[in-house]
Amino acid sequence: MASLGSRLVDIHTHVYLPRYAALLRSRTTVPRILTATRDGKPDDKLIILDHDTGRPVGPQYWDRDEKLKFMDRHGIDLSVVSSANPWLDFLPASEAEPMAAQLNEDLEQYCADSPSLTPSLNRLYGFGMLPLVPGISTTALLEAIEQISKLSYLKGIIMGTRGVGKGLDDEALDPVWAALERTGLVVFLHPHYSIEGQWGQKDNGHVLPLALGFPFETTIATTRLILAGVFDRFPALRLLLAHSGGVLPQLSSRLASCIEHDPVVASRLKHDARYYLGKLYFDAVAYGPEELGFVSDVVSRAKHYENNTSVPATATFERGLGSGRMLFGTDHPFFPPLKGTDKWPSVVENLRAIDAVYGWSSSDKDGVRGGNALSLFNLV
Amino acid sequence: MASLGSRLVDIHTHVYLPRYAALLRSRTTVPRILTATRDGKPDDKLIILDHDTGRPVGPQYWDRDEKLKFMDRHGIDLSVVSSANPWLDFLPASEAEPMAAQLNEDLEQYCADSPSLTPSLNRLYGFGMLPLVPGISTTALLEAIEQISKLSYLKGIIMGTRGVGKGLDDEALDPVWAALERTGLVVFLHPHYSIEGQWGQKDNGHVLPLALGFPFETTIATTRLILAGVFDRFPALRLLLAHSGGVLPQLSSRLASCIEHDPVVASRLKHDARYYLGKLYFDAVAYGPEELGFVSDVVSRAKHYENNTSVPATATFERGLGSGRMLFGTDHPFFPPLKGTDKWPSVVENLRAIDAVYGWSSSDKDGVRGGNALSLFNLV
Repeated sequence: MASLGSRLVDIHTHVYLPRYAALLRSRTTVPRILTATRDGKPDDKLIILDHDTGRPVGPQYWDRDEKLKFMDRHGIDLSVVSSANPWLDFLPASEAEPMAAQLNEDLEQYCADSPSLTPSLNRLYGFGMLPLVPGISTTALLEAIEQISKLSYLKGIIMGTRGVGKGLDDEALDPVWAALERTGLVVFLHPHYSIEGQWGQKDNGHVLPLALGFPFETTIATTRLILAGVFDRFPALRLLLAHSGGVLPQLSSRLASCIEHDPVVASRLKHDARYYLGKLYFDAVAYGPEELGFVSDVVSRAKHYENNTSVPATATFERGLGSGRMLFGTDHPFFPPLKGTDKWPSVVENLRAIDAVYGWSSSDKDGVRGGNALSLFNLV
Repeated sequence: MASLGSRLVDIHTHVYLPRYAALLRSRTTVPRILTATRDGKPDDKLIILDHDTGRPVGPQYWDRDEKLKFMDRHGIDLSVVSSANPWLDFLPASEAEPMAAQLNEDLEQYCADSPSLTPSLNRLYGFGMLPLVPGISTTALLEAIEQISKLSYLKGIIMGTRGVGKGLDDEALDPVWAALERTGLVVFLHPHYSIEGQWGQKDNGHVLPLALGFPFETTIATTRLILAGVFDRFPALRLLLAHSGGVLPQLSSRLASCIEHDPVVASRLKHDARYYLGKLYFDAVAYGPEELGFVSDVVSRAKHYENNTSVPATATFERGLGSGRMLFGTDHPFFPPLKGTDKWPSVVENLRAIDAVYGWSSSDKDGVRGGNALSLFNLV
């Protein structure tokens, strides 16, 4: 085994726990798993989006052995597993609350029973979930955080963008952010809904909502958090953004400029918008080295904007610093290979991208591949 | 005056020509100019978006002397002026067709009567417009292109994202792309509609639809052009993207990966998605040096993806090359200063951003400030 400094850690990897998969099978409306057989073999389809024809779904979505096989095949030492979207968004509060508690226990067990990496380190850890649905009580949400913080293999929570119905900039969530900040649980913010339309009438498969809509959704949610002052009120909150932060990095200076021109908003924020990007964590699921390097640039520059709304006067290049907030991920079991290949192209591309970032040192790259995750999740 | 190589050229600068402003004043529904006075002075409001409370509008929107004063104040030698959104989108075809022709003549006159920069170079050039509305005939569109190509100060057209109602990936536009390719007119693609909702219930002024929605709209439209094979069919088309291409640069590798996993789409494109970014032009209206440097990175790398869908194996850094497709812009008269200042912060920020891009040579920066525009519009 490699030394701890060069572990490969996957922080963006999903599961539909058997209890959750059973729930999806029992449903007659989206999201659901449609059970079928073809030529005597299981031919189940997962349908999670409206107007979706579904995608093949099988053991790789729920079977822990499949997860471990995938890890072994790609040299992944340790995974921090999260339930895949859409979590419990579709359940009434009375059902979401016990289901979240059970799924958190299930995920703890899923990790606890897994092989060890070292005497003090497991191969699987997890993100729990909260019953974030309309009508849920704050008490129930705080109890779920309390539960997760006591489960020793759960190191954070995964969360969608709707909160309890009004989005994440809802003041009703302030006690939740406070509890997450206090317990140190990492919040993995992940899209599910994409955005409304403009996709046109052509058959482009899932390309537009997945390639564009998903990152747009994450970007809108994170921007609303910034604009609502959540990072001013909860500066120690640890938020990890799916898909390298969507497109918040590329729009952060435009955002700062738009805020500067809108007195309603400008007056209520403590810092230039670009400052807040330095408080965030980004997965490295962007498929290209230029994208990863750029994300680390905007993280590196954030400190210059703490008390400043103006661009540095001279060209600087300090992307290594920002790499410390970026973490390898695979998005497994989504984006499987179309042809039978030994390794998944989506995984290989993300690894090659990390390796090819101009301006990252070997140690920066080791950090993105695993060291940063071990630190963030307090595993070292 | 500076030598031709170090001219400052603004290619993203708008006007509501007097004829168009009069049309907006005559309307009782959005888009409109609401005429009013306060304390005996004009207090007109421009309302171009639904649910918009309007913004102050005055001579800087239509008066050519104001444009020239703005240029002088910021050291801008030459501007390629375009009508601002929403162009003629709200008119029936029968009215849009003659109005486009008249506005093209008006803009030609606006430029022709302007002061000269050199004996062979004017200070003002323009983007014309087509009557791109539902129900318009292809003949009418081709006649408008013919008209514009004969007006000597008009060097391109500005275009929104709706085409003749079904977006820009509509095959009905193929004759339009063919004519634009043949005449060499530059197509300036500009957003107007933003995207639907998810902006939440907080009062964030115009920040979310402007900072995020506008670039999302441009990104969706350009991606749909790529997916529809428009750049495969019309490889010499010269498309200039507003706001540095929205967020297409940051999503281009994800787009390539999503296409690779969707056989419907993968089979019909000639190149990896990243290749097409090297065919595009980008304004430099992104307000930050890291953003500009990154856009030039994705343009520079495009050539590696002509016959390849895989990431380069080693770290390379060749951003100077990509700078050749980037062009300074101001977005005048939008984003005016809130306080009376000599220079507009939005303009100063964009100029400082160009100056601070790491890895761009002096000559690269001169190109972005003006030289690239002079070449693109055949002004040298």
